[in-house]
Amino acid sequence: MTGDLDNLRVILVAARNPLNIGAAARAMSNFGVRRLRVVNPYEVAFREARSAVGAAALLAKAEQYESVAEAVADCRLVVGTTAVGRRDLQHRLQRLDEGGRRIKRQLRSAAVALLFGSERYGLSNEELSHCHWVMRIPTREEHGSMNLGQAVAVCLYELVRGQKTAPPKTPHGKKEKTSATSRELERLTQALLGVLRDSGYVKPRAVAAEEKLRRLVRRMELNANDAEVWLGMLRQIAWKLGANEENNV
Amino acid sequence: MTGDLDNLRVILVAARNPLNIGAAARAMSNFGVRRLRVVNPYEVAFREARSAVGAAALLAKAEQYESVAEAVADCRLVVGTTAVGRRDLQHRLQRLDEGGRRIKRQLRSAAVALLFGSERYGLSNEELSHCHWVMRIPTREEHGSMNLGQAVAVCLYELVRGQKTAPPKTPHGKKEKTSATSRELERLTQALLGVLRDSGYVKPRAVAAEEKLRRLVRRMELNANDAEVWLGMLRQIAWKLGANEENNV
Repeated sequence: MTGDLDNLRVILVAARNPLNIGAAARAMSNFGVRRLRVVNPYEVAFREARSAVGAAALLAKAEQYESVAEAVADCRLVVGTTAVGRRDLQHRLQRLDEGGRRIKRQLRSAAVALLFGSERYGLSNEELSHCHWVMRIPTREEHGSMNLGQAVAVCLYELVRGQKTAPPKTPHGKKEKTSATSRELERLTQALLGVLRDSGYVKPRAVAAEEKLRRLVRRMELNANDAEVWLGMLRQIAWKLGANEENNV
Repeated sequence: MTGDLDNLRVILVAARNPLNIGAAARAMSNFGVRRLRVVNPYEVAFREARSAVGAAALLAKAEQYESVAEAVADCRLVVGTTAVGRRDLQHRLQRLDEGGRRIKRQLRSAAVALLFGSERYGLSNEELSHCHWVMRIPTREEHGSMNLGQAVAVCLYELVRGQKTAPPKTPHGKKEKTSATSRELERLTQALLGVLRDSGYVKPRAVAAEEKLRRLVRRMELNANDAEVWLGMLRQIAWKLGANEENNV
């Protein structure tokens, strides 16, 4: 997918707010999308946006166009985005997750444009007319309109989500924790039982107590490490209880 | 799901920038999540944020807390969020889509807290110690750190996405056990800490010990019942240790 994302062009049409342009660029950088195109941005905003955290290089390489037609000219699929509640759409609407699947398929072999409209008005009908279809983010009817930078982040997340390529690493290069063995858990159970007897929580002849504790310990689903820590704690407590008792005698 | 989302609390810890607080609130409103909690926000920022587009009502109702412990006290699942590339994490990491599934299951019946750290530093290890596990958004290694408002938008999108599908039922109509609340787990943590101090396992001035124990207890993923049993056992042990000490004097 990483290579495929080079086929994606994020196109901001008539964006007005430098913070939004910067935020869109930052989200692109976060998700590994590099090709930003802007159509008729508010000039000052576009210049100011260049300081966006971690996205300066991407913004410096952004391409500027006079019209949507030019900006999408080399793309084989052009997809618009829209807020909920727009009543005048002539286009087929796709849910973001369904649309995302179609886009991912195309990205394997062809350039795809993803269009975002201005903060105030979204994409005009003229601008939308360049799109093959339109995708909507599942916001509420009552408050459908998203912030531009957030809309870009959510759409790009949908395109990278579930990628097999970047598995989250366990910190410190540790392997997934090994579960404790039954032997370790049983040792723990017995240590706990001992402490609970010494402290009077479990009566000397309570037969069901041991079983209950065994189940309780199993439900903890301890890894081997934690089981060892618990065993150490219980042994120390047992020692202290015993030492106190001896002093009392 | 709409009703389920009322069980979700978005918690911003030490947020500094009013635009980010506002953006987080706006994304919440877009996706139908209403309960915002803030822990130690920069006061001015929090006041200024109140003008966020379409989210003023939500911000006006936001609850303010002094500590993470208080903010998550009534929640049965507490999930932290983090950027890629953090090397010092002690927690189990989940991919956002996998973690999202687990959160959605819990939301059907219990309050869930989703924590976001400050713009600059993310969540501290102490703050993370209140979390059951940690979720990461699949950003690039080279530029992992997301804008706060965008991170909130992406996480909430993951929770509302694909809502139409029938929820997977628990097999054989079994009810899922109610998880312990954070308040209960914290009580348990403190009881364990007390017993370990009394028994000499934890040295009086060991500062990291409390955090380590907190994480250990969260990893057990106790249900409410078992948490109560544990608390009862620890209290009995504490009593016995104390009674012995007194006799020794």
